[in-house]
Amino acid sequence: MAKALNQLGALEAVQRLQRRELSAEQMARACLARIEQREPDVRAWAELVPDQVLAQARALDAGSLRGILHGLPLGVKDMLDTHDLPTRYGSSIYAQHQPAADAAALALCRSAGALVMGKTVTTELASYQPGPTRNPHNLSCTPGGSSSGSAAAVADDMVPLALGSQTAGSIVRPAAYCGIVGFKPTFGRVPRAGSKLLCDSLDTLGGFARNVDDAALLASVLLGDARLLDLQDVPQPRVGMLRTFQWRHALPETREAFEQAASVLARAGAQVEEIELPAQDCGLVQLHADIMAFETARSLAFERAEYGGQLSPRLMAIVEAGAAITAEENQVHQARAQLTRQRSLQWFERYDVVLGPSTTGEAPFLDQGTGDPLFCRVWTLFGFPTVHLPFASGPQGLPVGLQAVGPPQADHRLLGIARWMHRVLSQRD
Amino acid sequence: MAKALNQLGALEAVQRLQRRELSAEQMARACLARIEQREPDVRAWAELVPDQVLAQARALDAGSLRGILHGLPLGVKDMLDTHDLPTRYGSSIYAQHQPAADAAALALCRSAGALVMGKTVTTELASYQPGPTRNPHNLSCTPGGSSSGSAAAVADDMVPLALGSQTAGSIVRPAAYCGIVGFKPTFGRVPRAGSKLLCDSLDTLGGFARNVDDAALLASVLLGDARLLDLQDVPQPRVGMLRTFQWRHALPETREAFEQAASVLARAGAQVEEIELPAQDCGLVQLHADIMAFETARSLAFERAEYGGQLSPRLMAIVEAGAAITAEENQVHQARAQLTRQRSLQWFERYDVVLGPSTTGEAPFLDQGTGDPLFCRVWTLFGFPTVHLPFASGPQGLPVGLQAVGPPQADHRLLGIARWMHRVLSQRD
Repeated sequence: MAKALNQLGALEAVQRLQRRELSAEQMARACLARIEQREPDVRAWAELVPDQVLAQARALDAGSLRGILHGLPLGVKDMLDTHDLPTRYGSSIYAQHQPAADAAALALCRSAGALVMGKTVTTELASYQPGPTRNPHNLSCTPGGSSSGSAAAVADDMVPLALGSQTAGSIVRPAAYCGIVGFKPTFGRVPRAGSKLLCDSLDTLGGFARNVDDAALLASVLLGDARLLDLQDVPQPRVGMLRTFQWRHALPETREAFEQAASVLARAGAQVEEIELPAQDCGLVQLHADIMAFETARSLAFERAEYGGQLSPRLMAIVEAGAAITAEENQVHQARAQLTRQRSLQWFERYDVVLGPSTTGEAPFLDQGTGDPLFCRVWTLFGFPTVHLPFASGPQGLPVGLQAVGPPQADHRLLGIARWMHRVLSQRD
Repeated sequence: MAKALNQLGALEAVQRLQRRELSAEQMARACLARIEQREPDVRAWAELVPDQVLAQARALDAGSLRGILHGLPLGVKDMLDTHDLPTRYGSSIYAQHQPAADAAALALCRSAGALVMGKTVTTELASYQPGPTRNPHNLSCTPGGSSSGSAAAVADDMVPLALGSQTAGSIVRPAAYCGIVGFKPTFGRVPRAGSKLLCDSLDTLGGFARNVDDAALLASVLLGDARLLDLQDVPQPRVGMLRTFQWRHALPETREAFEQAASVLARAGAQVEEIELPAQDCGLVQLHADIMAFETARSLAFERAEYGGQLSPRLMAIVEAGAAITAEENQVHQARAQLTRQRSLQWFERYDVVLGPSTTGEAPFLDQGTGDPLFCRVWTLFGFPTVHLPFASGPQGLPVGLQAVGPPQADHRLLGIARWMHRVLSQRD
C-alpha cells in the first residue's frame, strides 16, 4: 500500500513538491487531516489555524519555487517567535503575545519555502513544567520535554519536520521518547535571534525528523550548509561506547539497547570500544545544572520581577537556586566545563563518534513529568553536536535508542555516521 | 559651585538616593530639564515620555529601597526591549513595535531600582546607518555608533548611566567620540534575552558612564557580581602597549594619546612595554568583518525576506556580503579566530592589561557616518573585556582616549586597573 501523504518523509515529499507532482495544498491537507483526527488525543499544537495554513500553501503553489523546503509542512516550537501566529513560550505570562517578527531560524526555513503548520507545545519557558502533549505511542506517557509538541507531531505523522531547542535535553529526550530522530547541531551554528533565550551559553536550536536524511535536510537550511544536502553513509566508523557516570540510572531497556548496538555495529564492521571516563568527570551533570540555573535566573529577570506568581513552583525553584549562585562561583563552573570539554575533545582522535544513552529508558507516565535530561546535559554543556537514533523498544513497547555525538563543527560527518548506524541498527534481525 | 543634580556621577547620586536625601523624582526632574534644554540639538532619544518617567520616579520614592540603583536614571539603547516603551531597533521595519517584556539586562537594572528615562537612539539595527544623534561636544560631528544615543546622553549629563551593545565597536567607539567611559564586559557575562541579536558569537551588552567607578556600579548589576561594588585602584600594572596592525590608520591625536599614555603611566610607576604582533595576525579585522557579515545575514533572515526594501543599502550590502560566505568558510574563520584568541591570551602572562587605540582619532563629521570600528573589532572577536578611557583631545578639541583590555572573566581586575590608569592619565600636567 502506498504511504499516505502525511506519512511521507521530508526528502521524499520535497522531491515531489519540487517537481510540482505534489502541491503544497495537497500536502497541507493531508497533514491537517491527520492533525484533526489525532490532535484531541495527542495535543501537540499550541496554535494552529488551518485556513491560514491553506492560504499560505496556495500562495506557495501559485508562486515560483522558493527553495529546498518549498511547500513542506513544518512544526515550530512555541519558543520561536512567529510574526503571524501568537507565541506563548508555554507560559500564561505570554498568553496574549504576538511577536513582530519571525525567529531567524524559522525565517531561514520560510525563505527556503517551508510551510508553517503551527506552533507546537513547549513546556513552560522550555523548562520542566509539562504542557498538555501526550506521547503518541501511549497517551498515558510523556512525549518528553521541552520540545514536546514538535517531537509528538513528527512521531505521529502530523508533519515531516519540526523545530526544537535544547538547553539540557530538550531535543534528544523527546526524540527518544517519541521514537524519532532529533538533531542538536554544534552550539552556535543556528542563529538564535527571535527565539526566547534561557541560557546564552547553552541554548541550541535544532530539529526533529523521522529519519537521518530528513534531519540533514532541515539542518542544511538551519546551518546554511549545502554539504548537508549530499549526505552519504560514513560506514564502519570507530565507535566509542560511553556509559557515562549516570549509567546506574539506565533502565534495562537502555542497557539492552546499549549492548545490542555495540554488538550489531561491531558485526557490521564498526570498530567498537568502551570509553573509560576519568574519575574527575563525575560532577558534570551537576555542573551543567548549576550553570543552567545561574543563567536562567538572570535571563528570566523580567518574568521573575513582574510575573513571579505566574511562574510554576518547579521553575521558580530553579530560578531561586540559580539566584543563590554567585557570579564568582559561576565563573569557576564555566572554567571547569571548558577544561573538561577540551579534554573530552581528545576522544575524537581515537573515535569517529561517541555513542551513549539518550534517556534512562522509555517514556515515563505523564504524572512523572517530562523525564530526566541527565544523559543529555553534558553534550549541551560541551556544545557538541548530537543526534538521537531510535532503534529499540522497552517493556511497554515504547521507543528507546541511543545518541551519537560528534566533535564540534563536524555536523555533516556526524550525520553521515548516524545515517549508516541507523540503517544498520534498524535492519538487525 | 555645587554640581547640578543631572551632573552627579552615578555613585554620588545613588549614595544620596539610598539615604533618601535625594528623591528619584528630584533626580528625574533634573535630568528631564537637561534633556528638554539639549535634546533639540543632541537628539539622543528615540523615545522618552516625561510623565511616565515621573510616575515611575514617584513610585520608587513611595516604595522601599529596591536595590543599589534605586531611583537612578538610566538610558536604554533601543536594541533592548522594553515592555512599557516602543522598541524600534533604529529601523522603520519596527516603527510600530511594542515588546511584551523587558530585555533581561534591563530587567536586572530595574530590579536593582533603576529608573528608565527612555530609549536612546541606535543606528539601524545596530549597524552603520546613522540615526539623528549628534556629538554633544560638536553638533557637526558624529557621536559614533551604534550606541549613539546612550553615549551622547551620558556625555551631555542627561543621564548618569546608559546601556549599550557592541558587535564590532559599538560601545567603545561612541564612548571615545563622546569622551566618556564605555565598558564592554567579557563575552557571555550579560544575558542577551530580549535584546535584538545580530551575531550570536559577538554581541555583547555593556554600558556607559562618566567615570570608571560608575561603570563598575552598572557592571555590578549587569554581571550580577558584587565584587564590582568594591572597586579599588590596582596601581602600577604591567602595561602592554599595542599599536595593532591598524596603526597606519591612527590620526595624530591618537598617536599622541598613545605616546602620552606610555610616558605618563611609566612615570607613575607602571611597567610599560610595547607588544609586537606576529605577522600572521594581520588579517584579524577582516576576519571579524566576515564573521559579523555571515551571522548578520542569517540573524536578519526575516527582515531580509519580508522587508528587504526597508533595510538601508549600507546594511543590505553587509547582508549580501554575508550571504555569499559559505558555512564552510565561516567555520574556517571561526577556527582561525579561536586559535589567535588562544595565542593572544599569553599576553596576559606578561602584562596585566593591554592598552591600545579606541578609534582612529576624534569624531568625524556627521556626513562621514559613525566612524570606523577597526580598532575594536578584534577585542569583540576575542570576547575580551575592554574599557574606554577618555583623557586627551584632538585638533578640534573633541575627546580622544585609549582602550584598556583585560583577559576574559577578569572584568573586576580590569576595571581596578582602569580606575588607576584613568586617574593618572587625567591628572597629568
